[in-house]
This record gives sequence, C-alpha cells and structure tokens, in this order.
Amino acid sequence: MKVCVLAGDGIGPEITAEALRVLEALRADGLKIEFEHALLGGRAVDATGDPYPEATSKLAREADAILLGAVGGPKWDTLPREQRPERGLLRIRSELGVFANLRPAILYPELANASSLKPEIVSGLDILIVRELTGDIYFGQPRGIEVRDTQWGEQRVGWNTMIYAEEEIRRIGRVAFEAARKRGKKLCSVDKMNVLECTQLWREVMIDLSKDYPDVELSHMLVDNAAMQLVKAPKQFDVVVTGNMFGDILSDEASMLTGSIGMLPSASLDANNKGLYEPSHGSAPDIAGQGVANPLATILSAAMMLRYSFGNEAAAVRIENAVRKVLAQGYRTGDIFEPGTTRVGTKQMGDAVLAAL
Amino acid sequence: MKVCVLAGDGIGPEITAEALRVLEALRADGLKIEFEHALLGGRAVDATGDPYPEATSKLAREADAILLGAVGGPKWDTLPREQRPERGLLRIRSELGVFANLRPAILYPELANASSLKPEIVSGLDILIVRELTGDIYFGQPRGIEVRDTQWGEQRVGWNTMIYAEEEIRRIGRVAFEAARKRGKKLCSVDKMNVLECTQLWREVMIDLSKDYPDVELSHMLVDNAAMQLVKAPKQFDVVVTGNMFGDILSDEASMLTGSIGMLPSASLDANNKGLYEPSHGSAPDIAGQGVANPLATILSAAMMLRYSFGNEAAAVRIENAVRKVLAQGYRTGDIFEPGTTRVGTKQMGDAVLAAL
Ligand SMILES: CC(C)[C@H](C(=O)O)[C@@H](O)C(=O)O
Ligand SMILES: CC(C)[C@H](C(=O)O)[C@@H](O)C(=O)O
Repeated sequence: MKVCVLAGDGIGPEITAEALRVLEALRADGLKIEFEHALLGGRAVDATGDPYPEATSKLAREADAILLGAVGGPKWDTLPREQRPERGLLRIRSELGVFANLRPAILYPELANASSLKPEIVSGLDILIVRELTGDIYFGQPRGIEVRDTQWGEQRVGWNTMIYAEEEIRRIGRVAFEAARKRGKKLCSVDKMNVLECTQLWREVMIDLSKDYPDVELSHMLVDNAAMQLVKAPKQFDVVVTGNMFGDILSDEASMLTGSIGMLPSASLDANNKGLYEPSHGSAPDIAGQGVANPLATILSAAMMLRYSFGNEAAAVRIENAVRKVLAQGYRTGDIFEPGTTRVGTKQMGDAVLAAL
Repeated sequence: MKVCVLAGDGIGPEITAEALRVLEALRADGLKIEFEHALLGGRAVDATGDPYPEATSKLAREADAILLGAVGGPKWDTLPREQRPERGLLRIRSELGVFANLRPAILYPELANASSLKPEIVSGLDILIVRELTGDIYFGQPRGIEVRDTQWGEQRVGWNTMIYAEEEIRRIGRVAFEAARKRGKKLCSVDKMNVLECTQLWREVMIDLSKDYPDVELSHMLVDNAAMQLVKAPKQFDVVVTGNMFGDILSDEASMLTGSIGMLPSASLDANNKGLYEPSHGSAPDIAGQGVANPLATILSAAMMLRYSFGNEAAAVRIENAVRKVLAQGYRTGDIFEPGTTRVGTKQMGDAVLAAL
C-alpha cells in the first residue's frame, strides 16, 4: 500500500514524524506499506507558489491513502485566497472526492479532567460525527464579491451558495447509517429544515434512506438545538450526520467537549475507502518546532488509515491499544498534562507508543 | 407607548401573562404603557390559516414595541413551509426590519450549578451575542428545491443563498461596537472568511468600521473555532457579533453554557430602537398549560423593552433587580430547581417578582 505523506505546516512535520515511526515499526513486523512525501499548504506555497502543487496532486491521486499533518499559519494569512494553505486542503479533499469525514469525539478516562464540562456530563463520551466534506456552501457555485444595486444603493455584496443534490446526501447518509449499525445503532441527522430548503431536501433523503436501515434509530435535530444539546447532554448522541458547514462547527464543538483535541483523529473517505487522514487539531504555529506538540491524534489517524483504507483492523487496534497504554502509564504532552503525570515531548511520546506496541 | 403582545404557542401565553403583570405593576406606578394582543404562529394558523395574519402585521407595525412569548409545536410541524409557525416569526422580523438581535448569556451566581460546565469555567459569565437577524441565508434569494442535471444525472437539488451587502454588515457592526463600548470594550467578530466570500466581505467591513471605534478592541474568530472557544473558555468573550446563521448556532450554544436558558431574554431592534422582545427559549410544548414554565426570561425581555424601546433604564433595572432578588430568596421553577431551594410554578414566580419590585 502506498501512503502519500503531507507533513504540512506548523507542528505538522513533528507529529507526522512520530506517526511514521509507528507505521515503520509495524512494517518491520510485516505490514506492507510505502511512503512518499509531498508538499501541501504554506510550505508548498513558499516552494512553488501553489498550496496544492501538481506534483502533490499526482502523488495523492496515485496513493492508496494520504496521511496529513496540518496546514496553515500566520505567515500565509494575508495571501490572496487562492494561495492560502486552506485552499490546498479544500482542493485535495475535492479532487480526491473524500466526501465522508469521520470525526470521533472520545473522552479517554485518564483525561477526564481536561474537559471544561463536569465529569458526570462527559465521562465515557464516545460520539462519531459524520460530516459531508466535498459539497455544501464550501464548494457551491455561484459565489463571490461584486458590486450590485441594493436597497442601500450601489455597493458590494458577498454571497455563497449552499447546495446539495439528492445523491450527495444519500451517499453520506449511507456512510453514517453503516457506521451507526456497527456502533450504538442511533443516528441523529442535523439540519435547519425549518429555514433552509437545502436542508429540507437533506431531511427528506435521510428519512427515505432510513427504510434501508430498520435496525438503526434515526432522529433529526435542528442545528441550533444540536449546538445546545452537545453542551447540555452530549452522551445522548451516538452517530451524528450533517453537512459540510454545520459539520465544521459541530465537530469542533464536539471535539472540544473532551478537552483534549490533541487526542482526536479524523478520516475522510471516498466511495472506495481511499482516505485522507489527519488530526482534528490545527497546525499550532505558536508551539511549532519546539518538540512539545502532542503526536497522538496523528498516530490515531494512522490507526484509522489502517482500519479503513488497509482493511487491517488488527493493526489499527494494536496502535489504539498502545495509545491507551501510554495514557495509563501517565505520559502526557503539555496540552494534556496535569500534576501527578509525566510530562513528555513529542518524540518521547512517540517512543512511549513504540514501546507499548 | 403601545406594546403589541404576541403570546404565541405552547408556554407562550403563561409566560407572557406574568411579564404583563410586571409591566402593569409599573403602569400603576406611572409607566405609560398600553397593550394590544394579536396572534402569531400556530394559533394564528389555526384561527386564520396564516402564521402572521394581516391584522397582526398591522398592530405590530403601529406599535412601539412587541412582546413575544414563543411559537411552534408538534401540531404544526407537518404543515407546508408557508404555514409553519416559524415562518410567522421570520416574516415579522423581516417586515419590521429588526436586524439587531441582542442575546445576553449571563450566569446568575445563584444558578451556577445548573451549568453543565465546571464552575470555574463559567462563574461570572456575561457575554452579549449580537446576531444579524434579517439577512444572510435565512432570507437570501435564489433558493428552492428543483430537478437539475447533476453529475449523478437528473435529480433534485436543494439550495440557498448566503448573502450580505456592505451596509447590512455595517449597521449590525455599529450596534455591536456601540454595545461593546458600553461594556468591556472587546468585540469579537465571527466569520468563516477562509472559505466563504460572503464572510470575507463581512470581515473587511468590520475592520473598516473599527476605525470609528478606536476604544474598542476588535478581534476575529472563525466560526468553528468560536464554537470551540465557547466551550473551552467562554469568559474570554465580551461582545460577539456575527451573521444570522452562525448567530443562530452560537447564541444557542452560548445560552446553554449557563444551563438556564429559561432565564435568558432577547431583544431584536430596528434602526430606531423599535424592538421585538422574546425569551431565548422555545415554546416547550411538553410542559405547556401546566403552570410550571419559567417566566423570568420573558420578564427580563420586558426589562430589555423598557431599556431599548422606552429608553427607561430605571424601570429596566428595577425589574432586573427584582429578578435577582427572587433568585436570592430561593424561588425556582422546575427548570432551575435544586434541593434546598423553593420550587414554585409560573404564577407564583410572577407573584414573587411583583413582591420584589
Ligand atoms: C481549514 C478549514 C478550511 C477547514 C474547514 O473548514 O473544513 C478546517 O476548519 C477543518 O475543519 O478541517
Ligand atoms: C424558529 C427559528 C426560525 C428561529 C431562527 O432560526 O432564527 C429560532 O431558532 C431563533 O433563533 O429565534
């Protein structure tokens, strides 16, 4: 299996390095895996002027899976839209068609204190957010900023188009129903059907689809209520499915409930389980290069890669168990440190996971 | 001053009744205020077929302020879009041009336990969310569901248009800057400028406007990060300004941080401080008619009405102090009850506020 590694910006190179060490250890044990490295995001702009250069696109298209660190940083924030690191991310998602973004929000018992929520509200939290990733207002046309004749006279307006086709909703719905079937058999679909026609269609398609999944209990929630319920009683959720924009907001809110976003991986899959794997956190430019970033979300993203793109559940579980073990042993990077535990850097955390494998 | 009272559905009639008793007590003390009642929402549909009948529209347009209970309920959920109670709400907001929705999220010290967040994270919380209320994807054209030729063949697509004109952004920005000036002098503008052109214009206008408010510290946050920061460290915020859609989500999330949404009022103002005042919570059909709903958010909405539309700060403060006093006295409706306090119904809570006035 060929893996395209996109270390990216900020802490990206440090955290992907640790994930690669873990994968290399599994290779030594017989896992068939090859790596190719390429540029994405800010460093790609610096080197080529393009956040998603053609060479990267070629490697990514040829690979079986992509392991991504993180992109972006203040250095590139003032560039024109097309050259910003995020554009690279949006383009690779779109080009590869990885429409199904799976974002688990899990609270590790050892890290229960890290949450800003009361322990009884979050203990044992285990939600899976399924976010549609290649459609919606992120990519909808038409869009732009232009001068128009408005009720306030001639002036600039900015606009975007939220749009979903039936089949686009159905395929993400199927991924979510299948995921729910393998978990707690509860799926909550989030929309704003009382205001937005786009999400009225979303709800209709989900209801229609539910006939194929009689074993899964489908419920619906308006996005404003979902944002509340995540704070009030997050454990009511099993799998949540929603569009790209609402998913962006709710999946970040859900991750933060755990207080340890540095622990949370993500997978973005196409129809054939080719996937882009990346930690849920960002590029953390403030701590980049200091060797203190938490590599566990990236290591767990590598585990998701083995599960979904390699179909190698055993290897995935082996990594996940190793991560649980290092937590139990008390190793903590700065973001999850608390008195009484052992503070380690990025590389030492990688060492601990390797030892626990 | 003429106030149009729209009791609405569910618990609406019970809670507005208590707010009216409070206002009537102030009238007995000299406040010049008159009431006219009209129908909005589900009961309006039942009576006239229209959730915002012409008679209501006329009274609302002629009034100086509108006091609204809540609208909606399962009974009307399956009606066609144009007849659903929410449509009445959206139409009255739009027709009256009440573009500035002010939603405080305040944690009352006596109710600190009600929050699902740890006390140290939320104690003393006092945020004001300023949400644009008459534009954005809520009202943007074009919109609809239609059959189109897509990459999956002929099928239905659903779409909506997120749109803002410069002046629309500027006027809500001014309201937010003015509010920040009177409070902690910090304004955080929330957008998704890295993806949406519409919100790129939003950010540009906010930056431009900030030149007129050198005493207010303006910051910007992406909406996904804002959803996280509200959970992680909500006290970092003073005033938050954002568009209609993001504001819908974030203001509900922020209210829920307090754990007592039954306490939170809201005001929606036009350019001349004519306003629509309503509690932040919904119509709670499950407890309607039982006399147990919390009337305090509606009573506090009446206080906001006196402040903004009547310019009567003294009367507003008098109500707010009375509410603080009943909390200190230990009176609690079911939603905020905890052992050691005195559980009261809707009417008794109204009595307690009247006594405390
Ligand atoms: C960087 C940004 C474009 C991206 C998004 O909005 O999708 C990020 O927030 C994410 O969730 O992966
Ligand atoms: C009922 C609904 C249309 C409304 C909205 O989305 O604006 C409500 O959620 C609110 O926030 O007042």
